[in-house]
Amino acid sequence: MTIQFETIGIVHSPYKEKFGVPRQPGLVPQAHGSLELLPPYNRAETVIGLEGYSHIWIQFLFDRNPHGEWQPTVRPPRLGGNRRVGVFASRSPFRPNPIGLSVVKLERVALERGGVTLEISGIDLVDGTPVLDIKPYLAYVDSIPEARSGYAESAPVADLEVRFSPLAERQLQQRQGGGALKVLIEGVLASDPRPAYRRSEQHGRVYGVRLHDFDLRWRLDEHGVEVVELASPAR
Amino acid sequence: MTIQFETIGIVHSPYKEKFGVPRQPGLVPQAHGSLELLPPYNRAETVIGLEGYSHIWIQFLFDRNPHGEWQPTVRPPRLGGNRRVGVFASRSPFRPNPIGLSVVKLERVALERGGVTLEISGIDLVDGTPVLDIKPYLAYVDSIPEARSGYAESAPVADLEVRFSPLAERQLQQRQGGGALKVLIEGVLASDPRPAYRRSEQHGRVYGVRLHDFDLRWRLDEHGVEVVELASPAR
Repeated sequence: MTIQFETIGIVHSPYKEKFGVPRQPGLVPQAHGSLELLPPYNRAETVIGLEGYSHIWIQFLFDRNPHGEWQPTVRPPRLGGNRRVGVFASRSPFRPNPIGLSVVKLERVALERGGVTLEISGIDLVDGTPVLDIKPYLAYVDSIPEARSGYAESAPVADLEVRFSPLAERQLQQRQGGGALKVLIEGVLASDPRPAYRRSEQHGRVYGVRLHDFDLRWRLDEHGVEVVELASPAR
Repeated sequence: MTIQFETIGIVHSPYKEKFGVPRQPGLVPQAHGSLELLPPYNRAETVIGLEGYSHIWIQFLFDRNPHGEWQPTVRPPRLGGNRRVGVFASRSPFRPNPIGLSVVKLERVALERGGVTLEISGIDLVDGTPVLDIKPYLAYVDSIPEARSGYAESAPVADLEVRFSPLAERQLQQRQGGGALKVLIEGVLASDPRPAYRRSEQHGRVYGVRLHDFDLRWRLDEHGVEVVELASPAR
């Protein structure tokens, strides 16, 4: 059986590429974004009562993967990238049906200019992610604090110290919302966003992460992470 | 954009029709069933490590709805069926993309006869439900006990007393697993499975619910529910 689905909305996010996106929702609460409903779903009626919920489920499409490329096993970053687990025992984006599932905080339901936008935070979604469904989070069914969670019992460690170069500090000060942006950058970098296969690379190498409209350039040293600069993105 | 998905598995459940199915997973923990992976997904590799998880997410297709029949608002049974909320503020099966989301308990991963079957419980899925994806439940991200949940802050009341007629008692005793079946029946009926628009019907009317291979016949009276008999299903 083959089933056809349509995109009901689209995510607007500070994360412009997969690199740097938190591996699960909620890990970087400072990550604010929005979910814009698309016609014909962008009618105020479709979200009546949603403001009573503090959290929502987003079912979305992992559209940055070449379709049809699933493998029976994957190597989760949590296991250092060298142990294989079954694709159905992972939340990997490379799945038979590339449907993602994220719970995010619902900050506000905005009905403006005849459209519907949900302001959300704690997101782990790339900018432009197509949305298939939105559901309210029901604590009495969805929350199972005592659930046993295999190799992922607790949140990944995010304890790297994040420092800013004098240049990066100046660049932040010149921006509107620079304070919030600084907190977001700290959240993104404190967990070392590098994929497992790059974690053995030497200190000093400068990495770039597309965030908002800039290229966040940073490096690791013996003390933690240093943000080098907020560069103009290379096109 | 239109997206194509394939069925990766199928649910085997005691619930043979929508009527009688609990409105959320976990409400009737006694409801045992299984999820059978279909080729080419039914390979032991796809579930390596899954046995370390106590719960899993099932993303499935609401296939008992005529497709394309969504409405911007729905009338949830929790609100007595006479108040409308937005479709995205509900877990109604009538949605733009009819994708369901259920967390169930994973009892056992069975690798037998070259296939893969997941034994599950606490299910709210109709027999034959097509499955799109399976994901491990990650308590540290998915469990938000303090989440505010609109009109559905707590589990629906399920406090009807369930009695069995002498005939029904005899029929249960003659069955293998009659004890477990009795507990399942009590779980299903204690919450009054009738849709909201039938709740005003008079006492005494006999209802039928297809469960396993029989037609469970029951009625309401001033004391609660009486199970009349386990009848052969009318074909």
